[in-house]
Amino acid sequence: MLDLIGVFINALLGGSVARRREMDLFGYIMIGTVSGLGGGLIRDVLLQHGPPLALTNPLYIPIALAGAGLAFLLKFTEEDWNRVFYVLDAIALCVWAAAGAQRTLAAGLGWLPAILLGTITAVGGGATRDLLVQRVPAVFGGNGLYASVAVLVAAVQVVCSGLGAPTVVGTVLGILAGTLLRLVAYRRG
Amino acid sequence: MLDLIGVFINALLGGSVARRREMDLFGYIMIGTVSGLGGGLIRDVLLQHGPPLALTNPLYIPIALAGAGLAFLLKFTEEDWNRVFYVLDAIALCVWAAAGAQRTLAAGLGWLPAILLGTITAVGGGATRDLLVQRVPAVFGGNGLYASVAVLVAAVQVVCSGLGAPTVVGTVLGILAGTLLRLVAYRRG
Amino acid sequence: MLDLIGVFINALLGGSVARRREMDLFGYIMIGTVSGLGGGLIRDVLLQHGPPLALTNPLYIPIALAGAGLAFLLKFTEEDWNRVFYVLDAIALCVWAAAGAQRTLAAGLGWLPAILLGTITAVGGGATRDLLVQRVPAVFGGNGLYASVAVLVAAVQVVCSGLGAPTVVGTVLGILAGTLLRLVAYRRG
Repeated sequence: MLDLIGVFINALLGGSVARRREMDLFGYIMIGTVSGLGGGLIRDVLLQHGPPLALTNPLYIPIALAGAGLAFLLKFTEEDWNRVFYVLDAIALCVWAAAGAQRTLAAGLGWLPAILLGTITAVGGGATRDLLVQRVPAVFGGNGLYASVAVLVAAVQVVCSGLGAPTVVGTVLGILAGTLLRLVAYRRG
Repeated sequence: MLDLIGVFINALLGGSVARRREMDLFGYIMIGTVSGLGGGLIRDVLLQHGPPLALTNPLYIPIALAGAGLAFLLKFTEEDWNRVFYVLDAIALCVWAAAGAQRTLAAGLGWLPAILLGTITAVGGGATRDLLVQRVPAVFGGNGLYASVAVLVAAVQVVCSGLGAPTVVGTVLGILAGTLLRLVAYRRG
Repeated sequence: MLDLIGVFINALLGGSVARRREMDLFGYIMIGTVSGLGGGLIRDVLLQHGPPLALTNPLYIPIALAGAGLAFLLKFTEEDWNRVFYVLDAIALCVWAAAGAQRTLAAGLGWLPAILLGTITAVGGGATRDLLVQRVPAVFGGNGLYASVAVLVAAVQVVCSGLGAPTVVGTVLGILAGTLLRLVAYRRG
């Protein structure tokens, strides 16, 4: 469920990138889909644990399309996004990092792969989108803190699992800690 | 079979990109192989339904190499390609979109993933090639119609399958409709 | 074992790229991890033969992190790397090409896929790293010989396997031949 919120938010964000490039509706859909589904697709392909969720769960693609379509209608810019939606953006980042780590542990892999794939889930869609429109992925361009937040969230999830806490505890703690760190970073510029 | 024609045509096209970059024979082979096999590899990796066709079918790699080698010998440019070969190019695009959609349905996935993977099969090899030589993938650079044609073809295949028509009916109808649309678009510039 | 040496060397080299971009420690870790693990991850994803070694073997990620961390501490530049470490670099390239070809044969695939995946293993991590920092992958930028060496090593491994020689014979012969060719190429500029 939380995962799907991340799909929607990231597809919206992808739409704002499409707007800056003055693309047509089709461009919105392509960029929005890559942003919304890319991180999870990369994670599931690396896990080699059955077809990607984004293809088997019937909600992922429609929700990514809805996000891209809404972005087309709403006509907000990337700057608006950064000003208005940054709380949502931070939440989506953290949700995906926690979900990616959890899914890796559930596939029977260790804690380091869980942190690695949690981070890749959270930043992979955006990085792929940036590659496709030929700009240095934000995550590599001085915005290191973005990825650090994902690492932190994934690590919290892994530690809580290691301590035997229920999954939801690690997820909630990780998301709280990560969102807090992300918002503090925004305030400080 | 049709699929292999697409591999050959796309490897040829990859060679024309290598020529523009003034690469040596080795560059032709690398770019041609990526163009010819990339779309199918991405599709099969996302499907997670056994090793990619391009690796298990003994014809794919030799045919991609033959296309790249022929491009090296023939010395045509990307402009020649666009003028002379655009009918072949349109056919290759449609063939792959139909084959990708069909293969996704055969793996038991739904209609939306089938359209998505059909499109990715058709445009993925060229997009990867463009990324590797550092230019904005044609599919993202104002050439939206290119991808729309792939979506149309994949959709026709999916609809025909849903109506219970034999696979070949959807494939032929899709390729006809898509090639027509593509050629009309060429005429109009 | 040899494979892990390649991971370490490539993570180190990734660090030198991070230095040129004046990244922080986190940048080193991301670039170093992509360089050190990328080639093997791409190979294993294409093979579809179980989760990637880099995720299941508990040594890969720590060794890649150690290489990236050491690069952060040692403060050498990409030029230093080219001057001092080029023997190591050549060895790492050849080790990976041989290991990639061997692993493909072991998965039951033919000789052409083995050469293809051996080459991809050897050059894939570096190419992905170059894409992420937005420069034309060295392997596509006039440095064709780099990839030719990988093809040679993979081919030697495949031929030796075909002749019934023990795996280690092909590996040693391939690495010797490839390293020799690579060093000759360096001398000649």
